[in-house]
Parts: sequence; structure tokens; C-alpha cells
Amino acid sequence: MMKRIFIELQERSYFVYIAHGILKDTKFRWKLKKGDVAVLITDIQVAPLYLKRICNTLNSFGVITDRLVLPVGEQSKSLSVLDQIFTKLLNKNYDRNIVLIALGGGVIGDLTGFAAATYHRGIRLIQVPTTLLAQVDASVGGKTGINHVLGKNMIGAFYQPVEVIIDLDCLFTLSMKEFSAGLAEVIKYAVAFDASFFNWLENNLDDLLKFHPQSLMYCVYRCCKLKASIVSLDEREIQIGKRSLLNLGHTYGHAIESYFSYTGWSHGEAISVGIVMAVNAALHLQKFLSTRDAMRIKLLLERAHLPVHGPQEMQSKDYLRYMARDKKSRLGKINLVLPVSIGRARVFLNIDQNVILNSIEYNLIK
Amino acid sequence: MMKRIFIELQERSYFVYIAHGILKDTKFRWKLKKGDVAVLITDIQVAPLYLKRICNTLNSFGVITDRLVLPVGEQSKSLSVLDQIFTKLLNKNYDRNIVLIALGGGVIGDLTGFAAATYHRGIRLIQVPTTLLAQVDASVGGKTGINHVLGKNMIGAFYQPVEVIIDLDCLFTLSMKEFSAGLAEVIKYAVAFDASFFNWLENNLDDLLKFHPQSLMYCVYRCCKLKASIVSLDEREIQIGKRSLLNLGHTYGHAIESYFSYTGWSHGEAISVGIVMAVNAALHLQKFLSTRDAMRIKLLLERAHLPVHGPQEMQSKDYLRYMARDKKSRLGKINLVLPVSIGRARVFLNIDQNVILNSIEYNLIK
Ligand SMILES: NC(=O)c1ccc[n+]([C@@H]2O[C@H](COP(=O)([O-])OP(=O)(O)OC[C@H]3O[C@@H](n4cnc5c(N)ncnc54)[C@H](O)[C@@H]3O)[C@@H](O)[C@H]2O)c1
Ligand SMILES: NC(=O)c1ccc[n+]([C@@H]2O[C@H](COP(=O)([O-])OP(=O)(O)OC[C@H]3O[C@@H](n4cnc5c(N)ncnc54)[C@H](O)[C@@H]3O)[C@@H](O)[C@H]2O)c1
Ligand SMILES: [Zn+2]
Ligand SMILES: [Zn+2]
Repeated sequence: MMKRIFIELQERSYFVYIAHGILKDTKFRWKLKKGDVAVLITDIQVAPLYLKRICNTLNSFGVITDRLVLPVGEQSKSLSVLDQIFTKLLNKNYDRNIVLIALGGGVIGDLTGFAAATYHRGIRLIQVPTTLLAQVDASVGGKTGINHVLGKNMIGAFYQPVEVIIDLDCLFTLSMKEFSAGLAEVIKYAVAFDASFFNWLENNLDDLLKFHPQSLMYCVYRCCKLKASIVSLDEREIQIGKRSLLNLGHTYGHAIESYFSYTGWSHGEAISVGIVMAVNAALHLQKFLSTRDAMRIKLLLERAHLPVHGPQEMQSKDYLRYMARDKKSRLGKINLVLPVSIGRARVFLNIDQNVILNSIEYNLIK
Repeated sequence: MMKRIFIELQERSYFVYIAHGILKDTKFRWKLKKGDVAVLITDIQVAPLYLKRICNTLNSFGVITDRLVLPVGEQSKSLSVLDQIFTKLLNKNYDRNIVLIALGGGVIGDLTGFAAATYHRGIRLIQVPTTLLAQVDASVGGKTGINHVLGKNMIGAFYQPVEVIIDLDCLFTLSMKEFSAGLAEVIKYAVAFDASFFNWLENNLDDLLKFHPQSLMYCVYRCCKLKASIVSLDEREIQIGKRSLLNLGHTYGHAIESYFSYTGWSHGEAISVGIVMAVNAALHLQKFLSTRDAMRIKLLLERAHLPVHGPQEMQSKDYLRYMARDKKSRLGKINLVLPVSIGRARVFLNIDQNVILNSIEYNLIK
């Protein structure tokens, strides 16, 4: 069974295809034609698992494939690795008619997406996300970019792929830790936008953790569907509106990631703690989130094997330092996305520093 | 007197304003409001001439200004200088609400434009071109980018400014050599698109070379108007169509620039030789350009103090090596824009290598 989601963005519209085994399906029609040159960009962990499979399939309908295998990890989202990609492409004399295929997690997706956005001022891009996080979030919506020593995702572009191919079979080789990291974003969607999906997660989390095929399909489909509707409303995140709500937990989370220079804590783990801190802030501000809903959120994260306490090394002031630098902040004032009930979130502007300190400190006590 | 041109690009539409003295005109309304933070990016040659003037004006209506002064020259269009800009902006904690102002020639315009396209995935950009070349060409149309060791303008983005402010007074401080370089692009427009403008140039070139104010206004206005209509038709240069015709002379020209690693020959000088070589190729292909028109083009370039012979160091095979790498080429086949009469040009696909060799060699004989 295959599912298809249309991302409506005028002349930049495209489809997301979701299926088990789609990468080895020689009957599935990619948006590529005979004679096209596709350069697969992936990392050393994903390459041995899926590179051959996808090349065989593409070659079987006459697509010429080339590849670039990069090191694993967030450090690859840098200007210097980006330059490596350009050097490879220019050495081969590739013109603007080639297609880049991002085969991997969010790191490969963001980096390859940005390379596609800027090589010859923009070439075609296909996202083939292989982590849960990338399947439900990073690969859809056109955010691409790299990090700077002074901040995460500070350099990038909004650049839409021509299609997104999601093979749910790829999830089977993920470590439990990586799978859980993806669940952090899944739970984020449910908390911010969709109460009935949150209920579904409460009832089906155990099946998901056992990689039950139908549950995986439903979960990934539902998240992509949510992302699709949000992205269509606000492609470039211009309004402080619905699209910003995707950042629930991220202002806190980025502080954790930055503190460890993106090496200690994974994005998903950091976001999980961030969601809990956002829940705390919502509780502190009162009149919004109920304690019961707060408990349900925290419990679901725990059941997904996600951390709900911040790293012991970090003090609340460490968070503040990084949070003031966040994209959603302005002139040192901190804005946050907070849940107001399960399935609903809002942007709160210029939040009192004490509320933020409390939301963090409350969480440091184990 | 001020002239205004509308660049029609749906939600990315903007105005180009052209006037003498517009940078010190405190009555002119910029697309900036009180409290906005504008970071001016310029080079060490332009800074002492115009930076104070423009800051005073902007400060007079409450805009907060900051500045970054970069080295002069094509070498600044690099990943490492781009990184310098990001570092400066991030060190100041600037968010996506700031505006970048590119104050300078095409180098500053292309580099600053690309920085604006990619900082926080895109911030506002105002182009303030100060060379003739940048006023008639580089600042309008949204092409931004940097060079790679392996090729010129290989990395970049299509990114439109929110406005372009052209102060014709800036041209008075240009060296004659730089002014002539701009005339190469002016003559390119006339040859490729506009026979009556070509006639006007034949009649008014001497006034232009004396910086006659009305002539400058007419010349810059006419070129921007031509560029505007072309850009509106094909924002991202997707078709091999009208917009590609802007590349008349550029495939040869880029070969010259690359050969000297962008340090020996200026863009305008290289393009001038490129136009003559394109004229030669058109003559060789026969049935198109008349010998008389060919002579008129060459003569006008010479009157503008532009070179019409290629550099002595370069042999025809040196050209070919770089030309095969050009954006308009595909799979080693060379495509060229050639004039078919004064005011009309066409793209010719997959040109015979001998025609190209002849068009170059014919030109090496002084
Ligand atoms: N663009 C967006 O909208 C967006 C959204 C969310 C996150 N992100 C970005 O995504 C990144 C995190 O992505 P991620 O969590 O996928 O990390 P990742 O890309 O680093 O992948 C995690 C690890 O899993 C490995 N891996 C990938 N697929 C595998 C598979 N099928 N089997 C076994 N191992 C596999 C990778 O090699 C890597 O070691 C961050 O940089 C974050 O900023 C982007
Ligand atoms: N984006 C586009 O569409 C486009 C089109 C054409 C050219 N370009 C690019 O433009 C660049 C060339 O631009 P350029 O010719 O303006 O070169 P440039 O920017 O290097 O400027 C030439 C010199 O003139 C100086 N200068 C600038 N304004 C001055 C003034 N008013 N008075 C005195 N000196 C002044 C500069 O400091 C520099 O030394 C190339 O990199 C080319 O690729 C881009
Ligand atoms: Zn995320
Ligand atoms: Zn040019």
C-alpha cells in the first residue's frame, strides 16, 4: 500500500510518497527520466544499508547515478562540508540539469537541500529521508541549511524538493535511540495541533515501538499531512502564525544542542526536554494548560524512552544565553511557543524572564 | 528628476529608483522605517566615498545603521568572505528582521545579496549599486552568488531585493576604466535587444563619456527597463529564452576571467572581447549578421575604450577548456548567444567546435 500527500505551493508544489519497500520498487515512477544524472548524497552509516538498493532501482529505468558519501553527524552541516559537495560536483563538470538526492537523516537532508538550493543558483532536489525524524519533519516543507559556529541553522534557504520518497522499511535499521528521537517530533505535532492524534499515540505507542507496519504508516502519514497543511499556509515562515507552532520545544531544545556544540544531545532528545520545559512555562503562566494534560504529555514522552530532564551540566542561565539568540527572539526578548491544551499551542511574545527561569529550574530537579 | 521602474514579480515585486543625488536626499522615502536596523556592506574603496552620506540620510529618519567594510575585488566573492559576513551578523545577535544594504559594485551586490538570501534563510535586501555595471545590470533581477575555485558564480541564489536605489552621482568618482567596463554591458543590451538604443548610443557615446547627466539618466534608465522586462518574463532563467540572451559575450568572457583567476581582466573588459568573438561566430555561421553591423558593434566598443582583442597569453584551446564548463553548456556541448542583427540575438545550441575556434582565432590577430 502506498500513500501520497500533495504539498500545495503553486509552481513549487510536489508529492510526498509513503510506502514500505518503495526504494526497491522498480514499478514506482520517480520524477526522473532516462538519461537524467542523479547524484546521491548520503553518510557512511546509511550508504552500506541503502545506497546500492536505490542505485539499482534508478539504474533499472536508465537514470545515471553518482554518489558522495559524507561523515556522520551534525558537524557535517557546515560550510566546509558544503564546499566539499560543490567541489565534487564541479570537478565532474555537472551543470544545472542534474538532480541531487538526499539519502539519509535530517543532517543529510538539510545539507543536501542547501547544496541543491545554491549550486548553479538552484538545481532539482529529491528527499529520501531514512530516519523517523526526517520522514515526519525535516524532509517536508523546504527548510534547508547548515550551522555556524555561532548558531544552529543560521544559514540556509527555503527550497522545495521536486518530490519526497519515504520508505518505511528504512526505519527497521534505526537504533532505538534514533527512533525515539523521531518520536519527539511526532509527539510535538500531536501536542501542538492534534488532540485526536495524541489519543491515538497514547493507544498505539507500544505498537509503534515494535515497528508495527500499519502503525508506522499511520503515524508518518498523519505527521506529513499536518506538516503539509502548515507549510502550504506559510511557506517561508513569514507570519508569527501556525508554522511557528512547529517550533514547540525548540527554543529550549536548541539551547541544549548548542551548549554541547551539537555533539552531546541529539535534536530529538533536546526537543523532548524542550517540550517538557514549554509545558512547565505554560503551567507557570496559569489559566492555560491543565496539570492533567501536562502529566499526559510528560508520560507519553517517557513511554517513548525520551529524556524529560535537562542535562545535569546545564544551569538555567546557560539556557538563557542561547535562547536570546533564537530566531523567534527579537532584540533580546524571548518569544516562546507554549501548549495551551493538548492539541493546541500559541506563540507568547516577550515572556517574563522569571517564568523562563522557573520553567527550566523546575525541570532540573530529578 | 527621479525615474522609477517597477519590477513585476508577483509578491516579490519591487521598484528601482534612479536619480542624481538620491543618497543624500532626506526627502526620498526608503523602504525602511524608524527603528529598523540596516547593516551596510561595502568595500574599502567605496566606504570613504559614500558610507557617511548614506548613513546620515538613513539616521535622519531614525534607521539604525551598522557597517561592514570588506576588501576590494572579485576575490571577496568567496565562501570565506561570506562566512565573515555571517560571523559579524551573528556576533551582533542580529535576527531576521534586519536589512542588508549592498553599497558598491557588482562584487558587493552579488556577495551581499547571497548573504541576505541565506542568513536566517533570507532577510531583506536593498541594492545600492555604485558602478555603472552594477547600476545597469548586476543590481536588478535577483541573481546573487559567489565564486568557487573551480568556477565563477557557481554558488548562489535567485533572491530579489526589496528595492534598488541608483544614485547617478556615484558614477562621477568611477575610474574611466570601470566606467568603460559598465559600457560593455550597456552595449550588450543594445546589441541583443534594442536597435534604436544602439543608434542612440552611437550618437550619444561622447556625452556619456563626459558624464553628461541627462545622458547618464537615459542610458541607465533604458538598460534597467530592458532588464526589468526580461526578468519579469523569466525570473529564474528557466527557459533557454529571452533571459539567456543577457549572456551575449559572457561564455567567451568568463573563459578570459577564469583564465586569469578573476584578477587580470575585469568582467566588462572580458565581456567586450566576448561580444566581438560572438560577432565573429555569427559571421562565420553566415546568413545572419551583416559585415556592416559587425563593424558597427566593434567600433562602438572601441569608442567606449573597451578591448576588442583577447589577451595575448590565451590560445583558442584555453578558451574551449573553460567554455565547456559554462552554465549554458550541457554534456560538453557548447551553446552560445549570438547576434543575428543589431538589436536581435538568439541562442544557438551545440555549436561546431571549429566555428568556435575560428571565432576566437580570428580575433587573436591584431
Ligand atoms: N529541515 C527541517 O525542517 C528540519 C526539521 C527537523 C530537524 N531538522 C534537522 O535534522 C537534523 C537531525 O536529523 P536526524 O535526527 O535524522 O539525524 P541524522 O541525520 O544525524 O541521523 C541520525 C543517525 O542515524 C543514521 N541513520 C539514518 N538513517 C538510518 C537508517 N535508516 N538506519 C540506520 N541508521 C540511520 C545516520 O547515519 C546518523 O548517524 C538536525 O540537524 C535538525 O536541525 C531539520
Ligand atoms: N548579479 C548579476 O546579475 C550580475 C551581472 C553582471 C555582473 N555581475 C558581477 O558583478 C561583478 C563586477 O561588478 P563591478 O564591475 O561593479 O566590479 P566591482 O564591484 O569589483 O567594482 C569595481 C571597482 O570599483 C570600485 N567602486 C565601486 N563604486 C565606485 C564608485 N562609485 N567610485 C569609485 N570606485 C567605485 C570598487 O571598489 C571596485 O574596486 C562581477 O563579480 C560579476 O560577476 C553580476
Ligand atoms: Zn525539530
Ligand atoms: Zn555581465
